[in-house]
Amino acid sequence: MKVVVVAGIPGSGSTTVLKGALVDLDYVHVNYGDVMMEIAQKKNLVKDRDSIRTLAPDVQKDVQREAAKKIREMAQQSNIIVDTHCTVKTPLGFLPGLPPWVLEELQPDQFVLVEADGDEILMRRIQDTTRIRDMEKLRDIDLHQEMNRSVAMAYAALTGATVQIIQNHDDQLDETVARMIDTL
Amino acid sequence: MKVVVVAGIPGSGSTTVLKGALVDLDYVHVNYGDVMMEIAQKKNLVKDRDSIRTLAPDVQKDVQREAAKKIREMAQQSNIIVDTHCTVKTPLGFLPGLPPWVLEELQPDQFVLVEADGDEILMRRIQDTTRIRDMEKLRDIDLHQEMNRSVAMAYAALTGATVQIIQNHDDQLDETVARMIDTL
Amino acid sequence: MKVVVVAGIPGSGSTTVLKGALVDLDYVHVNYGDVMMEIAQKKNLVKDRDSIRTLAPDVQKDVQREAAKKIREMAQQSNIIVDTHCTVKTPLGFLPGLPPWVLEELQPDQFVLVEADGDEILMRRIQDTTRIRDMEKLRDIDLHQEMNRSVAMAYAALTGATVQIIQNHDDQLDETVARMIDTL
Repeated sequence: MKVVVVAGIPGSGSTTVLKGALVDLDYVHVNYGDVMMEIAQKKNLVKDRDSIRTLAPDVQKDVQREAAKKIREMAQQSNIIVDTHCTVKTPLGFLPGLPPWVLEELQPDQFVLVEADGDEILMRRIQDTTRIRDMEKLRDIDLHQEMNRSVAMAYAALTGATVQIIQNHDDQLDETVARMIDTL
Repeated sequence: MKVVVVAGIPGSGSTTVLKGALVDLDYVHVNYGDVMMEIAQKKNLVKDRDSIRTLAPDVQKDVQREAAKKIREMAQQSNIIVDTHCTVKTPLGFLPGLPPWVLEELQPDQFVLVEADGDEILMRRIQDTTRIRDMEKLRDIDLHQEMNRSVAMAYAALTGATVQIIQNHDDQLDETVARMIDTL
Repeated sequence: MKVVVVAGIPGSGSTTVLKGALVDLDYVHVNYGDVMMEIAQKKNLVKDRDSIRTLAPDVQKDVQREAAKKIREMAQQSNIIVDTHCTVKTPLGFLPGLPPWVLEELQPDQFVLVEADGDEILMRRIQDTTRIRDMEKLRDIDLHQEMNRSVAMAYAALTGATVQIIQNHDDQLDETVARMIDTL
């Protein structure tokens, strides 16, 4: 079955757009962070979701690999949408969310990157008090989105998957959801 | 023998520049789309060339793989220039023109990307009535060229090939052809 | 042990920043160019360091491979910092400094890209008379840094390593060194 990876940096609204699109589509929606969280909690590595980002890269690797295996098993039954990050920002730099050992397990058919303008993302983060997030400068937000595009094209070169980019601008959620439905 | 991949989005003028350069060079010029077209027509998949872009990704994969095999056989006799696209724009997103199964067959030594400014490409497309082309916004043209650069560097990382970028601006064809000859 | 690759285009100041940071850190500093130079001189391929950039791609490949092997052996004893280039600018285009046969040997854990604004790099190159360097236009400098980011993300996708980007602006060396220490 088809495996689609949907990604966006915090504040891009990727999860919101995805939920809107999945109302009308026959996909099983898997949040990669949730699967990682489940595995990390079983191993007693973290207490809350945002702490995963602060784990050492090696520990993140093991959790990622196990999450990929679990999702692949689910993909035998139905079309899967994996909600994740192209890169995770760590103190050591941008960590690829889909390194070789994950890509080999997932074998994704399509990547969809949800983006927004840097200033839109900045304002959304200021208004979002439900999750602890590192406040970043506009320049850092733009850089993160640029690096995600680059790594997505590398994932594409490694797998042959397509890469779709969808802009999720303020006050245009319906149009963005419609574009997501079209592309899925 | 040396295998060089020359690529550019529709309107970049990559084929024109290449033809100008090949007058003075000892290369066999292979258009990847033509080889794919030949194979796709034998399989009764398409009627005209632009329709290849609308095929499902899986079908495109098979056609690409067979085209790569065929070109590799030709490369045993002489230096080859493959005229193709870094990515093909499909309804599902940017599809890598040289995914792993193609790269492994081709083992290219050099990539040459022919680019132009977005507004130049837009004007050239408006004037070109010989082929059916999706009209795109300036922003989409810039994005396509950006994604092609990224994927070209991923192809380079996967093969060790060099990546040359050549600007093909209006009214400077002679200079552009001279640069192409230098780089080949 | 940990292997970190530090890279920056000529004039980025990557070596200066690195030397400042290594005063307080327990790493063995290996200059990839020096190791390549040592090997290339033994083979009687070059007289001075800048000439390596003018070697044919195939010859550069062999030298790179041997340098990677040598560095890997050193990494059995201590943490290693490899000072190198993401891409080397050659007449045939951007040559990846860490192609597959190098990445497989090195298995780096982290990439650190040292960058500066294009005009800063241009001025530093004008003032630097100790090495022969190709003078480039501002646009070419920006392009080289952009291509390095792309290829770094491809290296990351191939290895799972993190990619950190550090800006080394004029008159801020202390802050840049501090950021380098934090990231290492």
